[in-house]
Amino acid sequence: MTQLNLNADLGESFGAWQMGGDTELLGIVDSANIACGFHAGDPLVMRQTVRLAIDAGVSLGAHPSFPDLQGFGRRRMQVPAAELEAMLIYQIGALSGMAQAEGGRLTHVKPHGALNNMACEDDALAATVARAVRSIDPGLILLAPVCSALYRAGLAAGLPVAGEVFADRTYTDAGNLMPRGQAGAVLHEAADCVAHVLRMVEAGGLVCASGKLIATPFHSICVHGDGPQAVASAAAIRSALQGQGCTLKPLPELMLT
Amino acid sequence: MTQLNLNADLGESFGAWQMGGDTELLGIVDSANIACGFHAGDPLVMRQTVRLAIDAGVSLGAHPSFPDLQGFGRRRMQVPAAELEAMLIYQIGALSGMAQAEGGRLTHVKPHGALNNMACEDDALAATVARAVRSIDPGLILLAPVCSALYRAGLAAGLPVAGEVFADRTYTDAGNLMPRGQAGAVLHEAADCVAHVLRMVEAGGLVCASGKLIATPFHSICVHGDGPQAVASAAAIRSALQGQGCTLKPLPELMLT
Amino acid sequence: MTQLNLNADLGESFGAWQMGGDTELLGIVDSANIACGFHAGDPLVMRQTVRLAIDAGVSLGAHPSFPDLQGFGRRRMQVPAAELEAMLIYQIGALSGMAQAEGGRLTHVKPHGALNNMACEDDALAATVARAVRSIDPGLILLAPVCSALYRAGLAAGLPVAGEVFADRTYTDAGNLMPRGQAGAVLHEAADCVAHVLRMVEAGGLVCASGKLIATPFHSICVHGDGPQAVASAAAIRSALQGQGCTLKPLPELMLT
Amino acid sequence: MTQLNLNADLGESFGAWQMGGDTELLGIVDSANIACGFHAGDPLVMRQTVRLAIDAGVSLGAHPSFPDLQGFGRRRMQVPAAELEAMLIYQIGALSGMAQAEGGRLTHVKPHGALNNMACEDDALAATVARAVRSIDPGLILLAPVCSALYRAGLAAGLPVAGEVFADRTYTDAGNLMPRGQAGAVLHEAADCVAHVLRMVEAGGLVCASGKLIATPFHSICVHGDGPQAVASAAAIRSALQGQGCTLKPLPELMLT
Repeated sequence: MTQLNLNADLGESFGAWQMGGDTELLGIVDSANIACGFHAGDPLVMRQTVRLAIDAGVSLGAHPSFPDLQGFGRRRMQVPAAELEAMLIYQIGALSGMAQAEGGRLTHVKPHGALNNMACEDDALAATVARAVRSIDPGLILLAPVCSALYRAGLAAGLPVAGEVFADRTYTDAGNLMPRGQAGAVLHEAADCVAHVLRMVEAGGLVCASGKLIATPFHSICVHGDGPQAVASAAAIRSALQGQGCTLKPLPELMLT
Repeated sequence: MTQLNLNADLGESFGAWQMGGDTELLGIVDSANIACGFHAGDPLVMRQTVRLAIDAGVSLGAHPSFPDLQGFGRRRMQVPAAELEAMLIYQIGALSGMAQAEGGRLTHVKPHGALNNMACEDDALAATVARAVRSIDPGLILLAPVCSALYRAGLAAGLPVAGEVFADRTYTDAGNLMPRGQAGAVLHEAADCVAHVLRMVEAGGLVCASGKLIATPFHSICVHGDGPQAVASAAAIRSALQGQGCTLKPLPELMLT
Repeated sequence: MTQLNLNADLGESFGAWQMGGDTELLGIVDSANIACGFHAGDPLVMRQTVRLAIDAGVSLGAHPSFPDLQGFGRRRMQVPAAELEAMLIYQIGALSGMAQAEGGRLTHVKPHGALNNMACEDDALAATVARAVRSIDPGLILLAPVCSALYRAGLAAGLPVAGEVFADRTYTDAGNLMPRGQAGAVLHEAADCVAHVLRMVEAGGLVCASGKLIATPFHSICVHGDGPQAVASAAAIRSALQGQGCTLKPLPELMLT
Repeated sequence: MTQLNLNADLGESFGAWQMGGDTELLGIVDSANIACGFHAGDPLVMRQTVRLAIDAGVSLGAHPSFPDLQGFGRRRMQVPAAELEAMLIYQIGALSGMAQAEGGRLTHVKPHGALNNMACEDDALAATVARAVRSIDPGLILLAPVCSALYRAGLAAGLPVAGEVFADRTYTDAGNLMPRGQAGAVLHEAADCVAHVLRMVEAGGLVCASGKLIATPFHSICVHGDGPQAVASAAAIRSALQGQGCTLKPLPELMLT
């Protein structure tokens, strides 16, 4: 793994409410997952985020969600497959329109929050997500956690799939994220995140909390931007990877090579 | 005018609520203005309407609105230009995504309700609408009432502009729609609508309520679908036009000739 | 059971969209469960429904829901207890304000759709609903399906609880509604609904689809208003009960006796 | 004027988004205008804000708005009177329910943003607002800018009306707020706000930017909470007023005397 990608969730302000260190993060990451108005992001925020990302050379991804502004897309909902598929096409289309309006191009999709969590566990839901993405453009990259149902569904649908690991989350022996409630599930210190990432890059796969290795290629590392420490941590990960001779690229460039 | 177009607003159901005679209208009109979720239409309704329109050979248009589900987009709102422009791109992009997902293509845009009314009166607002449409795709046809600020703004922006007249509405001497409150503003009988349309086609322009003629080319006639009489009226207009030797075509075919 | 109550869900129009035979139903039922804006009903619809119900001598109930206009409150959502409790208080308070503005009084609460279904199965959720109702006014009647977790939670909270059975739904041997997918789950004919209701009134409890009797007092029978047949069915049930010497009363009068 | 009131807009967070220095402000002001979910504030935020206000001995007011979360209620909308009246009753009822659930009592109403601005200029709209408030409870205090149509409409409706002046805004000779665009319209320094307030208290009326005095009693001074300086300014105003021998009271206590 001498080539990798850093991704982050961006454009999560809404109307008069600000959220996230978008400006700083855009100087660090290679690809942006941009909220599409269902959990965060209004049309103006979306357009401004697309503009800033293009200017920063960061590739554009849609970050669609369940329709749940008040719950920030973190509440599980049971939505019939046909309806969910239409909701995803709607959001991806809207962000694609924004990209077009700013002279850019949408190149990947990453589901948000509860939708992402459910799609990592549930094969049928994962297939619905993959079908929605492919129906718009079979060349869109699906950004999905390694070892997940979503990852497998993307491959089965013939989509280019970028495998993702988390810089600040630890893993169970099954390759799932340790539930947030559990001790050690979230890494808070920049140094711990850097060490966690380097260990996985060197090992060529997931290094679980137990020390167990699940060998699997991955393409992208998800970093977060809430709080100044998170931005510092993201910057430290970037430096450390580059220090190891790793080249960091936007998703479309990375997946083409 | 030996070639014309019939257009109607479609896809105005929402969730559990049904509205409009879409199935019947799709057998009569040539072009559909499809609600984009801001005043009516949810993602599933949008997708189904796009599918039905494609199957019926009816060309696809976006029908964007102010964000006002409860008021059905009929309330005037003062939205800053940059925000309105982003809202329009969002909706047009969403419908374009639906078209893509169903193997079709978005070919025109017609603003809805209060937004349309305001854009017909206000040059700055009209320019914002035209800018939004062009930013997504300068080949998109703007469907705008003849003699309106919106019509002029579309031309000034270099968009293909299709001029529209209404089958069931009468006009003031200035070429504006007679306000709904006024007697005779709305034609309720199919025979009256047919006569109104034929008179304008023969005269080659708007025939105002006073009898005054405003010579102006027009491309499309808007018909409505609420109530069985409206559908019968639309069908009668189609027959009458064809009886006069007029060919009816979807907007993209019409505008190319 | 010589005294009973008929209840129906009302006020489910929204903005430009009409739903339900409210006017007819208000001449038949004794108590109305009025949508509170989260799954249906906007403020104007709420106010008009309250006015019509007061004029018809029908008692006023709030029919709160998950926040899900597009899904009509039929989608299961996982909402944290504190947030759900606040959502319920919000909706009940809003309807109570409408009642006050029209010179009436809110006297009962019945959860809607997926929220009701979940509260019938889940003790913790049921307790949250009961807590929300009691926090506004411990004199509010909770209208809950017999044999349900919600019914038990209402009693445990010290609320007056009115037990409900459905005129057009059959029951499993556990006293739950037969799932809609299953054959015979829904009774479509008025005669079948009448027979089902009379059987339960005579037996003094739930008569399950298998013929099994679960003896339990009940106070109210839920009827529906979608479609002209449903209204006819509701009227037939009213006549049949009165023909058996049963007195039909609004919930507050019934629960006081 | 030896008795006065300080009021502030509170509870303007929404879901995952935080806004305002509520905790600090609750230690300074006497009365809170609490967002009701239409421009800000979700049910949980509303409940928590009500709880905190009660604990701080701050009186509870509803701060209803046009339905416009994305625009924070700052966009002018044209809403038919009957619909607006119902929207106001809905929001006031919802907040009243929250107050009840927390053992408190709603005692005043102050419209928010564009609705407030329009109601200060437009007699018909002002009458609609007053009618909505009175329909719920004729004892509710209407908090309205002095010299405004809303102030007059409240008096005409027989409501107790508390006249309001702004600590950080200057006035035209007509007694209206200087438009925000104009130089000197907003006072940014705490010292300037304090001087402005003391001048008006001593003069017994509005001291316009030109120096002109419009003699008028007022009851309440509106302070803001965005930014640490605003909180410092509010605290300085409180101290200065108390230093002049002025007693500061919640609205219901003040209006009773």
